[in-house]
Amino acid sequence: MAAQESEVPATTPGIEAVAAVARRLLPEAGVITDRARLRTYECDGLAHYRVTPALVVVPEDAAQLAAVVRACAEHLVPYVARGSGTGLSGGALPHAEGVLIVTSRMRAITAMRPEDQRAVVEPGVINLDVTRAATPYGYYYAPDPSSQQICSIGGNVAENSGGAHCLKYGFTTNHVVGADFVTADGDTVALGGAAPDSPGYDLLGAVVGSEGTLGIVTSTTVRLVRLPEEVRTILVGFESTDQAGAATSAIISAGIVPAAIEMMDALAIEAAEAAVHCNYPDGAGAVLVIELDGASVEVEQEYAEVERLCAENGAFEQRLATDPVDRALIWKGRKSAFAAVGRISPDYIVQDGVIPRTALPQVLKAIADLSSSSGVRVANVFHAGDGNLHPLVLFDDAVEGAGEAAEKVSGAILDLCIEHGGSITGEHGVGMDKAKYMPRMYTDDDLDTMQMVRCAFDPDNISNPGKVFPTPRLCGEVPGRHKGAHPAQEAGLAEVF
Amino acid sequence: MAAQESEVPATTPGIEAVAAVARRLLPEAGVITDRARLRTYECDGLAHYRVTPALVVVPEDAAQLAAVVRACAEHLVPYVARGSGTGLSGGALPHAEGVLIVTSRMRAITAMRPEDQRAVVEPGVINLDVTRAATPYGYYYAPDPSSQQICSIGGNVAENSGGAHCLKYGFTTNHVVGADFVTADGDTVALGGAAPDSPGYDLLGAVVGSEGTLGIVTSTTVRLVRLPEEVRTILVGFESTDQAGAATSAIISAGIVPAAIEMMDALAIEAAEAAVHCNYPDGAGAVLVIELDGASVEVEQEYAEVERLCAENGAFEQRLATDPVDRALIWKGRKSAFAAVGRISPDYIVQDGVIPRTALPQVLKAIADLSSSSGVRVANVFHAGDGNLHPLVLFDDAVEGAGEAAEKVSGAILDLCIEHGGSITGEHGVGMDKAKYMPRMYTDDDLDTMQMVRCAFDPDNISNPGKVFPTPRLCGEVPGRHKGAHPAQEAGLAEVF
Repeated sequence: MAAQESEVPATTPGIEAVAAVARRLLPEAGVITDRARLRTYECDGLAHYRVTPALVVVPEDAAQLAAVVRACAEHLVPYVARGSGTGLSGGALPHAEGVLIVTSRMRAITAMRPEDQRAVVEPGVINLDVTRAATPYGYYYAPDPSSQQICSIGGNVAENSGGAHCLKYGFTTNHVVGADFVTADGDTVALGGAAPDSPGYDLLGAVVGSEGTLGIVTSTTVRLVRLPEEVRTILVGFESTDQAGAATSAIISAGIVPAAIEMMDALAIEAAEAAVHCNYPDGAGAVLVIELDGASVEVEQEYAEVERLCAENGAFEQRLATDPVDRALIWKGRKSAFAAVGRISPDYIVQDGVIPRTALPQVLKAIADLSSSSGVRVANVFHAGDGNLHPLVLFDDAVEGAGEAAEKVSGAILDLCIEHGGSITGEHGVGMDKAKYMPRMYTDDDLDTMQMVRCAFDPDNISNPGKVFPTPRLCGEVPGRHKGAHPAQEAGLAEVF
Repeated sequence: MAAQESEVPATTPGIEAVAAVARRLLPEAGVITDRARLRTYECDGLAHYRVTPALVVVPEDAAQLAAVVRACAEHLVPYVARGSGTGLSGGALPHAEGVLIVTSRMRAITAMRPEDQRAVVEPGVINLDVTRAATPYGYYYAPDPSSQQICSIGGNVAENSGGAHCLKYGFTTNHVVGADFVTADGDTVALGGAAPDSPGYDLLGAVVGSEGTLGIVTSTTVRLVRLPEEVRTILVGFESTDQAGAATSAIISAGIVPAAIEMMDALAIEAAEAAVHCNYPDGAGAVLVIELDGASVEVEQEYAEVERLCAENGAFEQRLATDPVDRALIWKGRKSAFAAVGRISPDYIVQDGVIPRTALPQVLKAIADLSSSSGVRVANVFHAGDGNLHPLVLFDDAVEGAGEAAEKVSGAILDLCIEHGGSITGEHGVGMDKAKYMPRMYTDDDLDTMQMVRCAFDPDNISNPGKVFPTPRLCGEVPGRHKGAHPAQEAGLAEVF
């Protein structure tokens, strides 16, 4: 699949006006208009779509960022926020006639309050740096996307990012308790707070995972979690994904909630071995990486039970990491899996879908059928514990029609997820890539309700437009509102508003 | 304080039209228009405000409920939803010219799926009945308001109710994963779902705790939690609340998260003893009720540490419940505390505020000072673990000015909470009672952002109007939106919309 490139736009008067505001407030290096440098921001982790922004600004603080948004609002210029640009759904894809607001210079951890289990961070702070800063106090930040060494908290908030350990600890939304938020007209409002509940609407929950379409978070208060007394990581080899799936179900049914249960199938194992020599069991049709954490006495008891349940479900090899190096190697195989697939295929699509855990065997079987009937290879890597699949659909773009065939299989996998009561994305977001699938999951009324909220926050549709919703509407077009005797309709103006 | 009674309204044509729709669809007993019977619904658990509704309907299912809302929307008739009416902030206070929609006939548990840790329930289902239905499978529903034997899940969702065990397990919002939701124009939309994350906006989070102002939930998918292997309940006596507060901090700082840490002061203990003879330690200035749950090996280890930390902080008596009867008696003292205060005072206000746990000693000292300077007695009962205070402000309405003095102390306590970085409600909601305090916590921009969302869901302001927000606006009046070049403003119509 060739990348899709936008036309070079003529710079609009609006862009000039926003650039002038930015030049007045930001250091020179923070305002980028040179075409060659603009191009370095043309895509995020989903490189399939490429659009060069008309202007890039790199604010140093929340006040500068809000001023840029205010200028955008005044001149109706679209804007897109970007953290580290590691997203996999094109959520940070620039707008050709818009401003890209990059948060990479907003990297301060502004407060570390272990006594309250809270930290306050700017949006450009790297995920793993929160944990690094909290560790000396005995705490860490739990949500751990595979990209945690490089992805930013702001991006995590926008996408409600998950990770291997979200099975036990929940997603980003479960760890964000407060935020300063710049609305689409440049106002700054406080959402949530340090208290366990805030009066009024929980707009923080709606903002987390809204993929930049409601505004931009400029400061985030996150929950810190106590470092566990003990962590045990176990690598378990099975002959088949069926066996590994059955073991997963048995563990959860026994009432054990491991910190993580990750599964990889034979093709994913092959790729990981080729790339990082992670020494996974020879000849395994599937492996599970199971991590238990908590109080030592509890971990020890759970470990005995997990070992027994894996054996009962056909495990032919179980290896407990005996030291941090061994543990890191086990995780390296899993966390490198996406990139590693490049070793066995020139091109691939990383898919992201969710199914109820109990549907795992049927869905894996259906994916295998899809693969064999289409001749498109699919490697499976997933968060087995919470049913979040990451099928890697392999193809060679040099072969004519291969990209389209892969795209078709990839879409069919999402249909499978929906059919089995699941969802089109577990943690990568909708972004640009999956907007077209939204109507398969939601009714028109469901989508209209979401669009009403978007219109409330961003009536001019300037905050990351074109993402999440398949058919953006002019605000006021949303049907079904102002039915009855509302004066707007009586005046015949319902079409306008 | 005399209850405030509304004027008897002339029934409007709108009410007649809604009643006609209800009569067509509902059984005869489900449409109440008789004035004497209407009066039985005039208040919720906060009996200070009383308003007789113009019409009461008791739908049997979601379709009937949606049809009633649709009729209300068509005729611009305000409506209020009511579950069991146990709320303490007047959230279910009727509207004098509106319809009260009572969910007490929607009490089906429509699905029980322990294998997925999910149950699906109608809004009238009693909180404790979910646990009763899940227990045979080894599960329970975690959020446990003190009123859990009688309060409804629909009310819990509206108020984002908490309870003693929310310290470890979180509030209602952490246990609701999906809902069917009837919007203010009578459409039904699906929010959330069974998957751990849903694409698009998390409107479910915004709806939970919105106190009926966005619409009505007609079906809720809740998370079930595994019954713990062991539960230990410990009653600990201290000489002072300072000591008990220090013990609480020490326990949390040690990285232990008990299922509950509840505190009662001397006056609250006196009331509970008088009412339910719970046999709390003689002469205690404060007691803690600490509950540990989880795997037996872990509970045992934590118990040893909690015992040591309490002793170090001055505990003069520690009693471990040795059987279920003893355990129930310990909890009975705590859970009856509000009602028990009636034994030592003819009238009282139940206050609800939150402070950071670390501010506990200063705030309790300040409340004591308020009490002694005003001569108004205050009994303190609270969820110490998460800093959720429930001061009980005692007075005798027969004494002139006593009600006003109590009201003043009660309001001053909320100011203390805000000053210390806390919140005006921990779990009882804003409702009618605390709308006036919202501007003390939030800026105009913060409140405007919430009102924008209300206007998106309910542009005609018919869904539980007058609650939560101190100064409801005509939708479209919210300032700061449509700044700049929006066509509505150019046409000079901004005042209308």
